[in-house]
Amino acid sequence: MDQIIYLDNAATTALSPEVLEAMLPYMQEQFGNPSSTYSYGRTTRSAIERARRSVAQILGVKPTSIYFTSGGTESNNTAIASAVRDLGCTHIITSPIEHHAVLHTVEHYSKAKGILYSFVQLTADGEVDYEDLERQLAEQARDGKKCLVSLMHANNETGALLNIEHVGDLCRTYAAVFHSDCVQSIGHYPIDLAECGVHFASAAGHKFHGPKGTGILYVAENVYASPLIHGGGQERNMRAGTENVYGIVGFAKALELAMAHYGPERAHITALKEQLKRRLLETIPGVSFHSPDNSLYTVLSVCFPDNGQNDMVIMQFDMSGVCVSGGSACSSGEDSASHVMKALGRTACATVRFSFSKYNTSADIEKAVDAAKVIFHKSKLELA
Amino acid sequence: MDQIIYLDNAATTALSPEVLEAMLPYMQEQFGNPSSTYSYGRTTRSAIERARRSVAQILGVKPTSIYFTSGGTESNNTAIASAVRDLGCTHIITSPIEHHAVLHTVEHYSKAKGILYSFVQLTADGEVDYEDLERQLAEQARDGKKCLVSLMHANNETGALLNIEHVGDLCRTYAAVFHSDCVQSIGHYPIDLAECGVHFASAAGHKFHGPKGTGILYVAENVYASPLIHGGGQERNMRAGTENVYGIVGFAKALELAMAHYGPERAHITALKEQLKRRLLETIPGVSFHSPDNSLYTVLSVCFPDNGQNDMVIMQFDMSGVCVSGGSACSSGEDSASHVMKALGRTACATVRFSFSKYNTSADIEKAVDAAKVIFHKSKLELA
Ligand SMILES: Cc1ncc(COP(=O)(O)O)c(C=O)c1O
Ligand SMILES: Cc1ncc(COP(=O)(O)O)c(C=O)c1O
Repeated sequence: MDQIIYLDNAATTALSPEVLEAMLPYMQEQFGNPSSTYSYGRTTRSAIERARRSVAQILGVKPTSIYFTSGGTESNNTAIASAVRDLGCTHIITSPIEHHAVLHTVEHYSKAKGILYSFVQLTADGEVDYEDLERQLAEQARDGKKCLVSLMHANNETGALLNIEHVGDLCRTYAAVFHSDCVQSIGHYPIDLAECGVHFASAAGHKFHGPKGTGILYVAENVYASPLIHGGGQERNMRAGTENVYGIVGFAKALELAMAHYGPERAHITALKEQLKRRLLETIPGVSFHSPDNSLYTVLSVCFPDNGQNDMVIMQFDMSGVCVSGGSACSSGEDSASHVMKALGRTACATVRFSFSKYNTSADIEKAVDAAKVIFHKSKLELA
Repeated sequence: MDQIIYLDNAATTALSPEVLEAMLPYMQEQFGNPSSTYSYGRTTRSAIERARRSVAQILGVKPTSIYFTSGGTESNNTAIASAVRDLGCTHIITSPIEHHAVLHTVEHYSKAKGILYSFVQLTADGEVDYEDLERQLAEQARDGKKCLVSLMHANNETGALLNIEHVGDLCRTYAAVFHSDCVQSIGHYPIDLAECGVHFASAAGHKFHGPKGTGILYVAENVYASPLIHGGGQERNMRAGTENVYGIVGFAKALELAMAHYGPERAHITALKEQLKRRLLETIPGVSFHSPDNSLYTVLSVCFPDNGQNDMVIMQFDMSGVCVSGGSACSSGEDSASHVMKALGRTACATVRFSFSKYNTSADIEKAVDAAKVIFHKSKLELA
């Protein structure tokens, strides 16, 4: 096996060399504690505030509404904790296809604090049924319940996209708090968070060629939020702990690069996704797609015809040198279909998620198609 | 000002070049998500488990009792949350000189869950009064209250050391849960956590030339603990979120190096501390020390005679090219004396904490003494 074909960019991406270069000075000479009062510490403080301004500007919000965290999971946890504890939300409307970082947090507050939650209905395509959402919002408002709506901007398994502005409008109408897990969209789309009408939004650096262990939580200006992690006064008392300076610098640099090259990179990746779709349709009889038309350009979730060894498919791709996943990486311990595919009733396929980055090439796609051909034709013969 | 003299190593330390070197492969080729099932992801999974085994071995415990976190603050928060939520602790015995990562967390659970807490008495030297601790433990046990004792192994401002085994014994006797914030001691001393009798212990990589944004939480084997951050199944369901692979690798490498060179480095740093103590006594009339005899070899907290401009002293050192701090870095926003110095009744000095690392030299100490001479003599003249 000569070279690995990495098509699991929704799980994590390669740190880009430019981002590493931006981080290195803060891993070498500039190591001062940003909370220090001497000028040497002020260099790292300035780097953090420069990063915050840059991220805020890209996302169309004020620097004071951006908090650096250790990742998307922590950001999601903080948002939901704050909605429950600080904003008095007693009911959460979410969906069964959210990431576990949302679902398990919601379950936690349900058990620990008796918060109720309900799932919004999904369309056959795996998209949010906005009418049902409005119905639920109206019902809760009628009952005088303060609602949190937590719906992801882009699903990490199917790539399905939320009409985030529309949900923002609905939440405004029914005075609900709106959190959106934007881990798969921030860094991949130009997003104006202020226009989206979200109160909380989460992102993670490692999904767009930034460093692992870094994320942001956006908290809208008018929202009073308190920390999940208590201690020193870092991040204006919203996230205690000595700042991961290189991580923060890397997060900002990765976001800057992603947005500076957005147009051509999106075009390149979209072409790869189209190529894969077309070639699979040509070569694998009975193939279909979980990803709806309106989905992330970075993700193609494929329903391969059941070959009797669904559990082995990811490993078979691996043996052909192609890295793909069955669902999200974090649910890879699960025995068969992910919670997302179960919720969507898509358990009768061998599901494979291909996810792309700017580093992928058309040749990568051909190799993936070659691998698929062998896996699905071979098994047919074996079954015969 | 030619070169900066960095004497604030208790705030944070320089990442060592060897640690950076160990991290770099995971910032370059090896970027796979450790939760992936394909072999490429298994490389990073192995790196994490290797790091965990190494850390566990150094700390005398089983790998399954070590969880990687984003830092000392998160570890402290997780331990206290778990003691309150999972272990049924309703009273916390702590001290007024704990780090804010402990104090503010205790205050949070006090407000949010009605947990009561009390402070152990301190001796004139700023050490824990073990008789008072035992009195309090006995009283709570008599009242049938389940106690958490949260006492730091080494104070980050004075350097005062806890007799951790003795506290472990007391907690065992009175069936209390014991958490120790070991952020200033792990990486600086050989510590056998199993022998200490702690149920929870915290450490942070950046205090011993490891990366910022990394820490560990030790949870003793027999303790049932649940996560603070919910989501994916990482860290055996104890800490969700895509792992900061390079951070974890760096944490372990830094701890390995610290322990491999412990003897000579401790001797070198101890000599610097003694040199500074002696030279200040020789040159600054009226100088005294907050650090008790039994204190961290890495920290010397100095009580300079009040020069009428206490608030300016750190800045004056800065202008002489010497980085020191008044208290902990995280409390540097505080107007005058830190909460620790207030609790110890040491507000009548200009307090300066000098803290050392293996990279400091005898010449650094002389420059710090020269700076002190100018600052404290000059102000005497000005006042005359
Ligand atoms: C004793 C002590 N505990 C906890 C912390 C918090 O560690 P971190 O800032 O790495 O989260 C520090 C240092 O900042 C400390 O000195
Ligand atoms: C949609 C979504 N939300 C949250 C997360 C969690 O982010 P992280 O693992 O960086 O904490 C991920 C990825 O793992 C994700 O895809």
